Amino acid sequence: MNTFGKYIRLTTFGESHGTQIGGILDGLPANLSIDFAWIEKMMQKRRPGQSNLTTSRDEDDAVEIVSGINENKTTGAPISFFIKNKNQKSNDYDYLKKVYRPSHADFTYAQKYQNYDVRGGGRSSARETANWVAAAAIIQPLLNNIEFSTYVSQIGNISLEKRYEFYQESQIDLSIVKCPEPEISKKMEALVYQTKEKGDSVGGIITCIIRNVPIGLGQPIFDKLEARLALAMLSINASKGFEIGEGFQSASMFGSQHNDVFIENNKTKTNHSGGTLGGISNGMDIQFRVAFKPVSTIFIPQETKDIDGNDTVLINKGRHDPCVVPRAVVIVESMAKLVLADFILASKLDAI
Amino acid sequence: MNTFGKYIRLTTFGESHGTQIGGILDGLPANLSIDFAWIEKMMQKRRPGQSNLTTSRDEDDAVEIVSGINENKTTGAPISFFIKNKNQKSNDYDYLKKVYRPSHADFTYAQKYQNYDVRGGGRSSARETANWVAAAAIIQPLLNNIEFSTYVSQIGNISLEKRYEFYQESQIDLSIVKCPEPEISKKMEALVYQTKEKGDSVGGIITCIIRNVPIGLGQPIFDKLEARLALAMLSINASKGFEIGEGFQSASMFGSQHNDVFIENNKTKTNHSGGTLGGISNGMDIQFRVAFKPVSTIFIPQETKDIDGNDTVLINKGRHDPCVVPRAVVIVESMAKLVLADFILASKLDAI
Amino acid sequence: MNTFGKYIRLTTFGESHGTQIGGILDGLPANLSIDFAWIEKMMQKRRPGQSNLTTSRDEDDAVEIVSGINENKTTGAPISFFIKNKNQKSNDYDYLKKVYRPSHADFTYAQKYQNYDVRGGGRSSARETANWVAAAAIIQPLLNNIEFSTYVSQIGNISLEKRYEFYQESQIDLSIVKCPEPEISKKMEALVYQTKEKGDSVGGIITCIIRNVPIGLGQPIFDKLEARLALAMLSINASKGFEIGEGFQSASMFGSQHNDVFIENNKTKTNHSGGTLGGISNGMDIQFRVAFKPVSTIFIPQETKDIDGNDTVLINKGRHDPCVVPRAVVIVESMAKLVLADFILASKLDAI
Amino acid sequence: MNTFGKYIRLTTFGESHGTQIGGILDGLPANLSIDFAWIEKMMQKRRPGQSNLTTSRDEDDAVEIVSGINENKTTGAPISFFIKNKNQKSNDYDYLKKVYRPSHADFTYAQKYQNYDVRGGGRSSARETANWVAAAAIIQPLLNNIEFSTYVSQIGNISLEKRYEFYQESQIDLSIVKCPEPEISKKMEALVYQTKEKGDSVGGIITCIIRNVPIGLGQPIFDKLEARLALAMLSINASKGFEIGEGFQSASMFGSQHNDVFIENNKTKTNHSGGTLGGISNGMDIQFRVAFKPVSTIFIPQETKDIDGNDTVLINKGRHDPCVVPRAVVIVESMAKLVLADFILASKLDAI
Repeated sequence: MNTFGKYIRLTTFGESHGTQIGGILDGLPANLSIDFAWIEKMMQKRRPGQSNLTTSRDEDDAVEIVSGINENKTTGAPISFFIKNKNQKSNDYDYLKKVYRPSHADFTYAQKYQNYDVRGGGRSSARETANWVAAAAIIQPLLNNIEFSTYVSQIGNISLEKRYEFYQESQIDLSIVKCPEPEISKKMEALVYQTKEKGDSVGGIITCIIRNVPIGLGQPIFDKLEARLALAMLSINASKGFEIGEGFQSASMFGSQHNDVFIENNKTKTNHSGGTLGGISNGMDIQFRVAFKPVSTIFIPQETKDIDGNDTVLINKGRHDPCVVPRAVVIVESMAKLVLADFILASKLDAI
Repeated sequence: MNTFGKYIRLTTFGESHGTQIGGILDGLPANLSIDFAWIEKMMQKRRPGQSNLTTSRDEDDAVEIVSGINENKTTGAPISFFIKNKNQKSNDYDYLKKVYRPSHADFTYAQKYQNYDVRGGGRSSARETANWVAAAAIIQPLLNNIEFSTYVSQIGNISLEKRYEFYQESQIDLSIVKCPEPEISKKMEALVYQTKEKGDSVGGIITCIIRNVPIGLGQPIFDKLEARLALAMLSINASKGFEIGEGFQSASMFGSQHNDVFIENNKTKTNHSGGTLGGISNGMDIQFRVAFKPVSTIFIPQETKDIDGNDTVLINKGRHDPCVVPRAVVIVESMAKLVLADFILASKLDAI
Repeated sequence: MNTFGKYIRLTTFGESHGTQIGGILDGLPANLSIDFAWIEKMMQKRRPGQSNLTTSRDEDDAVEIVSGINENKTTGAPISFFIKNKNQKSNDYDYLKKVYRPSHADFTYAQKYQNYDVRGGGRSSARETANWVAAAAIIQPLLNNIEFSTYVSQIGNISLEKRYEFYQESQIDLSIVKCPEPEISKKMEALVYQTKEKGDSVGGIITCIIRNVPIGLGQPIFDKLEARLALAMLSINASKGFEIGEGFQSASMFGSQHNDVFIENNKTKTNHSGGTLGGISNGMDIQFRVAFKPVSTIFIPQETKDIDGNDTVLINKGRHDPCVVPRAVVIVESMAKLVLADFILASKLDAI
Repeated sequence: MNTFGKYIRLTTFGESHGTQIGGILDGLPANLSIDFAWIEKMMQKRRPGQSNLTTSRDEDDAVEIVSGINENKTTGAPISFFIKNKNQKSNDYDYLKKVYRPSHADFTYAQKYQNYDVRGGGRSSARETANWVAAAAIIQPLLNNIEFSTYVSQIGNISLEKRYEFYQESQIDLSIVKCPEPEISKKMEALVYQTKEKGDSVGGIITCIIRNVPIGLGQPIFDKLEARLALAMLSINASKGFEIGEGFQSASMFGSQHNDVFIENNKTKTNHSGGTLGGISNGMDIQFRVAFKPVSTIFIPQETKDIDGNDTVLINKGRHDPCVVPRAVVIVESMAKLVLADFILASKLDAI
């Protein structure tokens, strides 16, 4: 249950309030180079505290690799990595001893496991996603020249309207909210700032574009590329939807509009399909979108029931982002990378 | 790759042009009763040729079980089942020897496996979904009193507008297009009929509601209930999107709107979350939606390239539905049942 | 539980008293040639009724493949195969309704699954091994020029004494008991014949030699080549022991005797290790032995207790081999082939 | 490849020359008590340096658990544990840069992964087994009142001759070589001492008895209890054979001798089967034996070839046990515990 992937298997552990989190990456071929600077760069993208819009929790998120490499190359042995937690303050959570936070996993964990550890959500915390970013950064060499472009396309009711071809990759990281169109980015920032002021939270959508994907990744029936991407995306905290290509919009279309006819070199004239046919990549750009709800921890008082069924008003404490979507950009991209790398290894066994 | 589920494992085989398809269900507890009438009823729901809106291919889809049962109860041994194919006519497909159908898996299969079998899409055909419906019908006793209500909520640009509580389960099967609101159903029927007349196809959306779900199904990190549902739904042919609860709509919401506060008995006042928190069922109704593109096989001529890169105009032959969404209702429901049954078994190991 | 292998996955079904048994082979690369004559030849080796020493049950054991091939080549889709049961007579077993056969799985199945199907042992019958032989014959092309030499090295207290290098492969199939030394073979035959006359059964040992194994098959920790072979061999009905290289004899040796020093071309001077080091093949011949107990079904009256705890004398009915070891030769070899083929695929992912 | 178990999954990492080794235990039910004193006690059993017969390497082998527990109970989250390596001196191994040790995994690792890390065998070192002992100690509460009695029954040509019922559990730990018969123990000690003096190594056999096993553990076909035990035992470094019940001796027996007839309470009069029938535990004592070769690292000069094919004489350096069998007692027992605990969880899903 804590393992992701079939050929490259990431098994993770750790709670947000513990001393460290980490994981074991098994199945990596020997002799891949490990690029520590790249790993650090990716971790920085996920790190909170990068602007006044996000939580000020200090996590330097250094990734320590303690096995499976020799002279910066993989040896074929499992790679284990660790990320220290700093500033874990479990006493922040004492007020939660008698009440489950609305729309938070407190309740379901407590019921499922018949125990209830109030300290910061434990395993359900988004702290876990640091493991995923680390793992994806480690396996980067498997992805060859596949290029990922991932950005925020909507926050609240403010959204990008053009297709991805019109945006510049370089603009994404210039934007605090990871939105490639400066005008829209500013509006999003303003919305997040207002939301923070109110003690509220707001949702959003992330778009991921993957270029230079080799033809043939994915499996026909139960391991369709889009199905594994959907699994990966719905594994991210607060995600509530996934669509590929035209997605929900395709429901309104006719086949004569939606079909992508062939042009030269096995390319298609349009790409309504979003890069896969029958679960297998067709060499066109993969395009998918992931919807995120507003995070449940808000600082507006909430009228709810406590554990004993009594009326109560919950007022949250501590630090939380009003909008996690910008920080989730690298998480979406990392999970997509883990999926693709897994299928790249799998594809070596397709045919003789 | 052809196995679905972790505790109950369905492994399938078969191509649409072969003599039969089928599967092996492994991991079922002993002493479950098999209800053959129920299996037949479910198969009828998926069967084509039920109205003049769908393909007239005659498939009686009888499910033959040849192992794993004794006196109509499971023995603990794997259950194997078979469904004969009738009327497979592979010569219908000769015209495809030199051209890949746009937006069809012909192309990706041929590239992936370095072979190209033109007969009806082979493994990529929706014929495979008969296996899934059979398997879900077999495992029905594991679902106890969990109730599923699944219906078509959109075809083309015609959609239901009310929330599911306003519709009557009994109306679904009275509708040719499986839409519970008679007025809307008629409009959908008309659209499908017009689409068929034009030789075109049209997409749609299916909504699935699951009631009486026990609290605690799903796993926290990589086997979240919603993630496994998303995997299951994106495994269905022509599906392009999945959303749970408010789904993509949640991106526009604030936390103060979206959060579901507790009322009595651990129920929540609203159910924006759609029945899961942190990947685990919370006892509220599960609500999700699946988007389907229009199927790629249309009878309008398509200007495309042939295998050698020459211009060609493809004119499809054979029988195909203009809209598969109504027939996909039972497929969506079946896959959801397989997911839930798997988690029901898994939950027996949650805690001592 | 009914699946064997990780990259090539064989999932089987079927009981000895049903209409058919069979399996699904998933994970085979596309474009492997299927050699039907070879499959039939291998099935003949396992078939009972080949001499008056074995059961006269008539099983022609034709293997029918119904999916996953096109023009006699694999397509990448799962291969399903079926073997019809003939002459299943469940009424032979009525006398077992009130008593468990000593040392037979009747008892443990009944207790585990809380049901008791007296018909011929059902899933515990060695009939299942026909599936394994069929599967191994299908995947034969993956084994390239790896050569297997498998023979009976002991029946009862009669055993071969020389090392395998002294025997001729061609002698094995000339021997009714699959023993390559004619003198010893005759003694074994006589012993089996005497045992049959008495209504008794007798055990034995099978030796398997594998030549031309590529270096590097196997995984270091939990998927050691010898560990997977042991798993495979102890999966065979009536097997009670496995040893590789010097096996139990190595316990009496000193390192200075046992170590295999290198000579030219990375070969070793001796091969006490039996072809693996640290779980990985080293290119020397793999040599292992499997011990089989005498089968439990004997025709000598046995004083035991019935299901209700009353004294009874069990007198078995029906047909059974006095010694299954000769027929198990091809089963041992088939399981070894499935293990090696799995590791051959796995090894494609070892290093870049 | 670095994961053991299906319901309880142990994934390990670490090399003997690294800073630490460890693992992640996934699938443990919530609310199991963790007994740290027990864990330490088990680790002490495996620790080297307990007598002058074994290596003097100082490993205190403290097990640190950093996730998955709350107030000393499991939470349902994965348990990660770490064991620091002390005194790793990779410079001890410089002399191995140009030569593979005979019968050691140096050669096969180098060939498989196309790299060669001379530092102490890396992942192939028995250091890894500390992880297994730790994991088995953690999952001990799942084993309820199942009792394990594991001892050395042979070293070199000195062996116990009586059946296990004649020995006293309490004698095992009083013996430096873990042999329950004091007279034989002294002879074994003397042999090990002599072997050490010569710079040689010697093999041996470990017997494991498991009492109070519930009926019904194990799966019928490919996950037979004895098959999974065999897999587990052949995963241990230097093991070369496994047998259960009468094992290889059963090959010489007749069915009329070997069959275990029933007496009262579903017990059997004899227990030649060794506690399983058809892959499933029958409630009688499980009895199995594991053969260990003499370890390959000896201090007697060995005439071999170096990596370039030139004649060389290898003289090993460093610290190594002349006989690892006594220290392997707790490893055998730990692996058996992991197998049984896995099947205990699995058995909760057998029947409704």
